[in-house]
Amino acid sequence: MENTVIYGKNAVIEALETGNREFNKILISQTSRADVKIEKIKELAKEQGIIFQFVAAQKLNQFVPDGKHQGVIAQISPVKYVALDDFIEHIGGNVVILDGVEDSHNVGAIIRTAVCAGIKGIILPSRRGVLINSTVEKTSAGAVNHISIIKVNSLTGAVQKLKENNYWVIASDHHAKDNYYDIDYSDMNFALIMGAEHAGISKSLLKLADFKIKIPMLTNFNSLNVSNAAAIILFESIRERKKITEVTE
Amino acid sequence: MENTVIYGKNAVIEALETGNREFNKILISQTSRADVKIEKIKELAKEQGIIFQFVAAQKLNQFVPDGKHQGVIAQISPVKYVALDDFIEHIGGNVVILDGVEDSHNVGAIIRTAVCAGIKGIILPSRRGVLINSTVEKTSAGAVNHISIIKVNSLTGAVQKLKENNYWVIASDHHAKDNYYDIDYSDMNFALIMGAEHAGISKSLLKLADFKIKIPMLTNFNSLNVSNAAAIILFESIRERKKITEVTE
Repeated sequence: MENTVIYGKNAVIEALETGNREFNKILISQTSRADVKIEKIKELAKEQGIIFQFVAAQKLNQFVPDGKHQGVIAQISPVKYVALDDFIEHIGGNVVILDGVEDSHNVGAIIRTAVCAGIKGIILPSRRGVLINSTVEKTSAGAVNHISIIKVNSLTGAVQKLKENNYWVIASDHHAKDNYYDIDYSDMNFALIMGAEHAGISKSLLKLADFKIKIPMLTNFNSLNVSNAAAIILFESIRERKKITEVTE
Repeated sequence: MENTVIYGKNAVIEALETGNREFNKILISQTSRADVKIEKIKELAKEQGIIFQFVAAQKLNQFVPDGKHQGVIAQISPVKYVALDDFIEHIGGNVVILDGVEDSHNVGAIIRTAVCAGIKGIILPSRRGVLINSTVEKTSAGAVNHISIIKVNSLTGAVQKLKENNYWVIASDHHAKDNYYDIDYSDMNFALIMGAEHAGISKSLLKLADFKIKIPMLTNFNSLNVSNAAAIILFESIRERKKITEVTE
């Protein structure tokens, strides 16, 4: 079995609970305190017949460069990428497109927030930006297991295909005229494009967008982190939907 | 002069431009490409009579554990912390209180977003969570130079003092009944408390809150990153203010 490493208590618990990953084994630091979450990991592993071993903390450090493993790692099967055609045909729902986002912490945080906001798919280009790695899994707090991860060779092709399938394409672009709260997210399937940390969204994608929106600031310090920008827009999109639910109920 | 290290192009440019930090010297990697931002750093350094040296990239790695220095570091005076009394008397404005937030990336991202949303002060406890370090400075993209950083021995004492000075205290708490968009942020000075990643807000602070708010989710995956949660609330607070401005103008 091809293996990947995930680390951190929440990431391991989520992978155990969602059950869509195959476990090789779980390594727990001998010096980790026996807290509620570690107990939960042991319990779930026992239920599912998954091997867990107690090892020296240094052993875990070998797998996790920055040492932030919280006393637990797991060797598991990699995330299964979903094909865009399959997603559109069999799953559906709103998606977020990351156009070359390079920082694993940002990708992980966006996936986590996207799941909280009911987004069903994340589209990543196969040759730019980061794909799913251990840091993305950790930062997502296990959210990678609750959303379709769609890897495509061409983002332009993917956006065209989404448009053919009645998606509205929204680009987050700080040169836009409209504000993020000026559009009505409630009555459409949307694909929200977030650009790379420094370069923003590529021109060929911007051209395809049905809406361009910006987040207006109160100061000249005009520079939001991409995951925070995504959070602001995604929670605006469900705020509107929640309002409509309140009115019609 | 006591020194701290900041790294990353934006962090160094912001520190040079705001001019509230004393520079010892700037080190630039010999192998860094001569891009617009590196040129800007050299130009600003020349104007201000600050030494810059070209060194081997390995030399920079010594200062920056994760290697994400983007080819430039600067040795500069540490951030000057502001006393809460001075802030209230001479500066004023809305503040964010971080109750033991432990991840430097989160603290940096919150400071960056807070500055974009017009927040004037960040309050940190001196003995829990992180204070301003190189990673916070980098993740904030230099925003630490655009806001008062207030370090206090007791958060409870700080909150009491803010209340005595007519601040309204808002706690972000996922057990709250009210939603973050149910309160009117426009007509008050507020202090928004964000809790630690795992433990949330301590009970003694929750008791002092005038408002408790939650961010409603669309799914059961009920777990936002603290910096994303802060972004959602802070941009709601200025969205409301912007609306009122539009109406009265």
